[in-house]
Amino acid sequence: MRSLEWLNGRVRFIDQTKLPQDELYVETDDYLVIAKAIKSLSIRGAPLIGIAAAYGVVLAVNEIPDENTSAFKTQLDNAISVLAATRPTAVNLFWALNRLRSVGNQNSGRAPRVIKEELLKEAQLIHREDERMCEAIGRNGADCLPNAAVVLTHCNTGMLATGGKGTAQGIISTAWEQHKLKHVYIDETRPLLQGTRLTAWELRKLGIPSTLITDNAAAFLMQQNLISAIVVGADRITKAGDVANKVGTYNLAVLAKHHNIPFFVAAPTSTIDFQMTSGKEIPIEERSREEVTSIAGQKIAPDVVNVYSPAFDITPNELVTAIVTERGILRSPFIKSIQNIEKME
Amino acid sequence: MRSLEWLNGRVRFIDQTKLPQDELYVETDDYLVIAKAIKSLSIRGAPLIGIAAAYGVVLAVNEIPDENTSAFKTQLDNAISVLAATRPTAVNLFWALNRLRSVGNQNSGRAPRVIKEELLKEAQLIHREDERMCEAIGRNGADCLPNAAVVLTHCNTGMLATGGKGTAQGIISTAWEQHKLKHVYIDETRPLLQGTRLTAWELRKLGIPSTLITDNAAAFLMQQNLISAIVVGADRITKAGDVANKVGTYNLAVLAKHHNIPFFVAAPTSTIDFQMTSGKEIPIEERSREEVTSIAGQKIAPDVVNVYSPAFDITPNELVTAIVTERGILRSPFIKSIQNIEKME
Repeated sequence: MRSLEWLNGRVRFIDQTKLPQDELYVETDDYLVIAKAIKSLSIRGAPLIGIAAAYGVVLAVNEIPDENTSAFKTQLDNAISVLAATRPTAVNLFWALNRLRSVGNQNSGRAPRVIKEELLKEAQLIHREDERMCEAIGRNGADCLPNAAVVLTHCNTGMLATGGKGTAQGIISTAWEQHKLKHVYIDETRPLLQGTRLTAWELRKLGIPSTLITDNAAAFLMQQNLISAIVVGADRITKAGDVANKVGTYNLAVLAKHHNIPFFVAAPTSTIDFQMTSGKEIPIEERSREEVTSIAGQKIAPDVVNVYSPAFDITPNELVTAIVTERGILRSPFIKSIQNIEKME
Repeated sequence: MRSLEWLNGRVRFIDQTKLPQDELYVETDDYLVIAKAIKSLSIRGAPLIGIAAAYGVVLAVNEIPDENTSAFKTQLDNAISVLAATRPTAVNLFWALNRLRSVGNQNSGRAPRVIKEELLKEAQLIHREDERMCEAIGRNGADCLPNAAVVLTHCNTGMLATGGKGTAQGIISTAWEQHKLKHVYIDETRPLLQGTRLTAWELRKLGIPSTLITDNAAAFLMQQNLISAIVVGADRITKAGDVANKVGTYNLAVLAKHHNIPFFVAAPTSTIDFQMTSGKEIPIEERSREEVTSIAGQKIAPDVVNVYSPAFDITPNELVTAIVTERGILRSPFIKSIQNIEKME
């Protein structure tokens, strides 16, 4: 199964807000349905948001008759604006929309029918690139794991978050296909419980043996030598190899060091921010108090309570064993291994 | 306010299952109401369970007319059995009931009216002892904290769990009264969210400034030098100073070591198990999967999912800065400092 696909002029996607209780697919040729789905988190995960927005642009221009050249241009600009406004912090969204805009500009002198084809090609290319990148990360990462590996992971980094088999989850799936994975422990990942809701669901779909734990139980498992590697994703990586990822990741990195367990970060090289050296420069988004004081609409905290809920945390590079990218495995000193990647850009 | 008190032949207690949404008090002269309240977690926290059970025995015998000597003896035995069956693993429950049984035996030749008085005295003594123990732990622990301390705590160890101001929470309250506490961060404490539901509520009641965080955010706070000490309770402590406490405690201990933050365990000396040396010998209770897959009756996980949910974890003594007891502060080597306590028994 795929979390999102292009089907003869329509986009079909799984509504992630309904998971894991319902596996509900939405099929639409209306780009505003895509915009709304991104905004409401029905479509989530940075790479997947970029792919969905790209297809959204294609759906938007397809609404315009081929002969109406001026309406075509207006609709293209408008759709890009509407889609860009859905999730202001998702970098992949702007990156994908910029690629579509460039294709539009490069072909501006041509007939709308041709531009429509070129835009679809670009959206499908973005999708295919992401899929291949997941495959490459999966292969590179699986090579790092021992045989009969028992992996601990955090948050959701799989097919629901990407256009392919995932980043950290791509490594897990590949190792499973290679018969070198024994078991996966899934952190529930408070506050938004992506581990419980999404990763547990994905691993079940894939038939990979897994066990859900509270984030609190991870240390106890490591103490009992039950974990052979920790594999997580990343939202941003600095030139020095500092990693911003879902809150709780830094916690795992400290525990991994204490227990001598390798700690792998899986991410495409597009996650590297070549403008930034120290992780301390990365702005940390704060989430709403309701995500901590309520769960699934059910209130659990007193009426008056202060809450601090950072969405991400920063893992300093010295706690990272390796960064697994589609171009290979980066190791310490990261400032050098990442510089080599930059030179290839 | 008190979580439980004796009021002229009746017991008044707060129903903890209704917190924090409702502050509901139950007043009863029926010992079966007490038994049911312990079973349903309306009354919880090991010390408080012991106190409640002791008063329960008194309520039970008070139902019997003074002249009916044989019914008195039957009722006493029966009430102890019924109360002992409420929570099979709570050590304080049996300890308190045994004290009441001894008083009954020692006074068996006397009139029921006299035995009733002696039993009430013993129950009140257990209650008062626990209250004083909390005071002493609070004073001893507050001495360990720096000025303007910012404390991180886990689970619930306060007036809801004890007959007094609490163990770890007793230290926090005392430091606040001494104007040496600045702020408390509260781990929400998955899976049962005692931090969110109970500790946040207690600190608000006491007017102590506090902030609720997900367990995942604790490491990030320590990284930013926001925490000056970690203070937690204990369910069992071995002769070597290994500590069994609410799952997530060991996690905090590892983080504390990594960030050079003092890690204090607060517990009465009755928590020390002089029969046991290594923490590895302590049996770890596993909780039900529903506590992880559902929250407040709301299902959050897929239907089919494996769950591992240990209720406790073990913190090895080398990660403990000090164990704060009512008799003083125990430090490394714990095998010696705990031996000195044993000699005083």
